[in-house]
Amino acid sequence: MYQVGFDVGGTNLKAGIVSHDMEIIAHRNVTFPKGDTFENITGLMAEQVIDMAKEIMLPVSDFKSIGVATAGSIDTNRTTILHAHNLGFHNVPMVEEMHKYFPQIPVFLANDADAAALAELHAGALRGKKTAVLLTLGTGVGGGIILGGKLFKGGQGHGNEIGHMIIKQGGPICTCGNKGCIESLCTATWLIQQGRRVIVDNPIGLIYEKADGNMNNVTAKIVIDSAKEGDPIALDIFNTFMDSLSSAITSIVVLLDPETVALGGGVSLAGEFLIKPVRELVKQKSFFKMDHEVVAAQLGNTAGIIGAAMFAGNE
Amino acid sequence: MYQVGFDVGGTNLKAGIVSHDMEIIAHRNVTFPKGDTFENITGLMAEQVIDMAKEIMLPVSDFKSIGVATAGSIDTNRTTILHAHNLGFHNVPMVEEMHKYFPQIPVFLANDADAAALAELHAGALRGKKTAVLLTLGTGVGGGIILGGKLFKGGQGHGNEIGHMIIKQGGPICTCGNKGCIESLCTATWLIQQGRRVIVDNPIGLIYEKADGNMNNVTAKIVIDSAKEGDPIALDIFNTFMDSLSSAITSIVVLLDPETVALGGGVSLAGEFLIKPVRELVKQKSFFKMDHEVVAAQLGNTAGIIGAAMFAGNE
Repeated sequence: MYQVGFDVGGTNLKAGIVSHDMEIIAHRNVTFPKGDTFENITGLMAEQVIDMAKEIMLPVSDFKSIGVATAGSIDTNRTTILHAHNLGFHNVPMVEEMHKYFPQIPVFLANDADAAALAELHAGALRGKKTAVLLTLGTGVGGGIILGGKLFKGGQGHGNEIGHMIIKQGGPICTCGNKGCIESLCTATWLIQQGRRVIVDNPIGLIYEKADGNMNNVTAKIVIDSAKEGDPIALDIFNTFMDSLSSAITSIVVLLDPETVALGGGVSLAGEFLIKPVRELVKQKSFFKMDHEVVAAQLGNTAGIIGAAMFAGNE
Repeated sequence: MYQVGFDVGGTNLKAGIVSHDMEIIAHRNVTFPKGDTFENITGLMAEQVIDMAKEIMLPVSDFKSIGVATAGSIDTNRTTILHAHNLGFHNVPMVEEMHKYFPQIPVFLANDADAAALAELHAGALRGKKTAVLLTLGTGVGGGIILGGKLFKGGQGHGNEIGHMIIKQGGPICTCGNKGCIESLCTATWLIQQGRRVIVDNPIGLIYEKADGNMNNVTAKIVIDSAKEGDPIALDIFNTFMDSLSSAITSIVVLLDPETVALGGGVSLAGEFLIKPVRELVKQKSFFKMDHEVVAAQLGNTAGIIGAAMFAGNE
């Protein structure tokens, strides 16, 4: 029994055929122009399905379901993408459009962080957990919540916007217009901003060197690597980042008392250099003063595909 | 069928006999010395049970259960009060001690905010809700969470410490030692502090007048009443309070997508003067930009008794 999973980003889509034991047995990664139409992108997705079916020599009718994960919000009926800002999608009827190509196959929509959390629950860092949270730290911050051993889709079916919990009133302006959201402080974007500021205001040290003194070369990896190598300016930035991230996790921990919080997304590639001190800070800051596991997510880039494929409406 | 409920505070205990339709048919409110022993207080509680039984002319054996709500934390077996700082209780075996008096009656322990939320769920502002939160704003901040139509006791059974979610990193020191917790910003305690500061630093206006220029006379009610009457200094304080409270509720709303957030505790007696603007602020700050009901709790002082009486381990 095979399921199709898509993870659709702003300019690329990842597709995979996922087996019942959650192995990806065929996959594609294709790009499309920024701002491409919804119809074009859906057409491109349909091509991948047909192409992957050929590769594994199975008829498309053998696919049990198609799951589509994107950033942004899904309507409560789970047929329409309400808003996916990175794709410029607003009220697009994804399920209906996909059914034009594959009328016999059930199509499911999911938020990408929800999909990743579902994948981690069944095949990754959250396996067997009843109450757990996945935080994806990338350009923005996404989150998937597991309650009672199942994906929590929000009390009213709107999912969660964990990245817009407020941890620093009066803090930096967030993409949402408010100040001090998790997303304004715990992202690769924030690390890059701070690194760029170093190049402008304080042009010495490892960040400056690694970026060849060019603001546009600064990446989150450069800032993290510079901190790892002991650069004091970079360490300062990284410590502030860990302070923010540990506050965010603490707020979640004191509310939900979860078994595990897993960190995914690009920033989490910093590994134990990030996670070990954050774990300690959370223990210090949490009223519970006990271990709530803080671990790295395990599935990396494939979590979205696997999770999307697993979506069937009743997860 | 009758159940006994206790709501035990720092220097007083409220007791009630609660009928199956959640009416309080007998009640007591007795004080005891600050720092009194656990054994004395339990003895006093037992007396109330016997006394109320006489009043309603029923044998004690007709009481189906005894529920005890206190501030603080309960062990995961729900037999021992781990810490109730206001009572000076640490690791006290409340269930065992109460069984010495009433060996035949099941005894249940609950956090007071959990008890209040359970009462609001069955007989108050949260009736019929599947996902909802009660915030009690008093000397501290407590919270009870309803998920799937049931009281959520924490993913690992530790309950919640919602008052220690961080909403203002680097903010005021909290009772827990961290900075910028909800409890450091959204309490009567904070309002009183600000009112006192007015008397010291800026001795004019309604707060000064109502408190007769005496710092020790300042109450949260004086600050709120002064704001209601349009005093600019008090309004400034009150607006800051609403900013903090709306940030706290926003953090909860974007995480849980609840149907309703109810506000209880002394500060909520400010009524719509508080709740209406907070509701608007939450809508502005929440990424969802839709109505998540923010309402007043309905049961007031009796919520603890009713909720405690309803505790039976499987709520």
